Amino acid sequence: MEEAAARGGENSGSDAAVDGVSAIIPGWFSEMSPMWPGEAHSLKVEKILYQGYSEYQDVMVFQSATYGKVLVLDGVIQVTERDECAYQEMITHLPLCSIQNPKKVLVIGGGDGGVLREVSRYSSVEQIDICEIDKMVVEVSKQFFPNLAIGFEDPRVNLLIGVAFLKNAPEGTYDAIIVDSSDPIGPAQELFKKPFFETVCMALRPGGVVCTQAESIWLHMHIIEDIISNCRQIFKGSVKYAWTTVPTYPSGVIGFMLCSTAGPFVDFQHPVHLIDENDDLNKSMGPLKFYNPEIHSAAFCLPSFAKRVISSKAR
Amino acid sequence: MEEAAARGGENSGSDAAVDGVSAIIPGWFSEMSPMWPGEAHSLKVEKILYQGYSEYQDVMVFQSATYGKVLVLDGVIQVTERDECAYQEMITHLPLCSIQNPKKVLVIGGGDGGVLREVSRYSSVEQIDICEIDKMVVEVSKQFFPNLAIGFEDPRVNLLIGVAFLKNAPEGTYDAIIVDSSDPIGPAQELFKKPFFETVCMALRPGGVVCTQAESIWLHMHIIEDIISNCRQIFKGSVKYAWTTVPTYPSGVIGFMLCSTAGPFVDFQHPVHLIDENDDLNKSMGPLKFYNPEIHSAAFCLPSFAKRVISSKAR
Repeated sequence: MEEAAARGGENSGSDAAVDGVSAIIPGWFSEMSPMWPGEAHSLKVEKILYQGYSEYQDVMVFQSATYGKVLVLDGVIQVTERDECAYQEMITHLPLCSIQNPKKVLVIGGGDGGVLREVSRYSSVEQIDICEIDKMVVEVSKQFFPNLAIGFEDPRVNLLIGVAFLKNAPEGTYDAIIVDSSDPIGPAQELFKKPFFETVCMALRPGGVVCTQAESIWLHMHIIEDIISNCRQIFKGSVKYAWTTVPTYPSGVIGFMLCSTAGPFVDFQHPVHLIDENDDLNKSMGPLKFYNPEIHSAAFCLPSFAKRVISSKAR
Repeated sequence: MEEAAARGGENSGSDAAVDGVSAIIPGWFSEMSPMWPGEAHSLKVEKILYQGYSEYQDVMVFQSATYGKVLVLDGVIQVTERDECAYQEMITHLPLCSIQNPKKVLVIGGGDGGVLREVSRYSSVEQIDICEIDKMVVEVSKQFFPNLAIGFEDPRVNLLIGVAFLKNAPEGTYDAIIVDSSDPIGPAQELFKKPFFETVCMALRPGGVVCTQAESIWLHMHIIEDIISNCRQIFKGSVKYAWTTVPTYPSGVIGFMLCSTAGPFVDFQHPVHLIDENDDLNKSMGPLKFYNPEIHSAAFCLPSFAKRVISSKAR
């Protein structure tokens, strides 16, 4: 509890009913962070299902009253069963529907398996590498989130634990790289810096695409500006920002930075591939819950306050 | 505090530091409701600025740490200075940019003045009637939210307090009616029922448009289905659902029901009027913060789970 209180900064409650859950509302989990000062989002806890401390972070799973099971890393909600479809489908299909016939895909982070599940819908894909730093996330997902961890069951998936692979990633190899990271405090902070984007760029084929989690236009415009500046220097193709709704993420939205390398032009806003719901792979996965071609294009339309900042930097 | 606790249903805290603020986190305001069971959103309170009980509801204003001043009715956030632009601009410009040269506009609810402020941007508008049930909301807004209440300063505005006007609204009069209501529990519940929509329909000219607050696709699909069913029976023109992001509303989104009466066809998704930022009226109001033509069209693109329900009912 001491750690959680220190991390939240504002958390001075002392009457926690359940060990490991926020001290703020007895029996509720509350998310507070310096990343979104002055506000908190809370979910009612039915039962704590898991609590552990990996080499990198605190890992918790609880059954919530109204959002299904919830995965929490370092006190921050990563996934709820009720709204994970929005994040997983958008971070995957925004890049993969923007190119023809992706064959080799790399997922960085994403240890819960949800992005893998979505990549698996593409029959053109031959190889799916996933590089996750924390094996506890993978194990916990396999135990508690079968609808996410199903992604690991695809025989095309090659799981690599640790960071060594990324540093020596094969050059010019991937059609698409998806960076499913947590926030830029804690273990994921390197994934928001220039050297990381340079590595990603090197690992992509000409005209290859990357999609990275890129925070909230309501809360983190300064972080977004930095990401765009870095990406614009490194990626010589398209550099675009998209966003979507995820109720359990701070401010209720999450953004995505989409970039392509020098090579064939990628028009991110207009998908060239339509996911075929009649495809055998898709039938076995069930229908998409969130993504469709219209929501793909709409995701690139920004409110004016964000457009003024982002359009001047993106291309 | 007893009332607030009873309303929240889940609120069993007892260590409120500030009278009138949620008992849940000392020094924080927490929003809980049967409308979104099992979750709460909390803002840190710097200072309670106002607390009163009108004939209809509890009215509170507080200075938050990071969202500016906040207006709360019956324990539910209506407006924060930081994100009000999204709601006010979308609920106003979605309908008004969908028709040519609106002249007579009726606002129902909206006692804070924010919608009036946005309607005032149209030089074609000759008459703006506003029918608000609760004069305390108007008074409180004039005292604490000058950037919203500025809407009342427009000489075209005609303020009517009470419900009598609405019941005897002149027939076939308005080009557009904007229903800026709170949730369908409490004083606004009539504004979600069939007789109300019939009154609205009668008050519109042929091809006139209405835009009503229509809850969250993540939380209230059953309410939305009911609204659409009612509207489809009553409005013989277009019936469309749109949505946008508002971080301090439950689930981070809010929807809008847009309907037109029998008469000239209204294509809500493709605005026919572009707000001219060089117009003298707009210059004095300052630039739009949220709305633009792209975000107008994008607001009608729905996630698949919502599209499957809504598209079968809307037209």
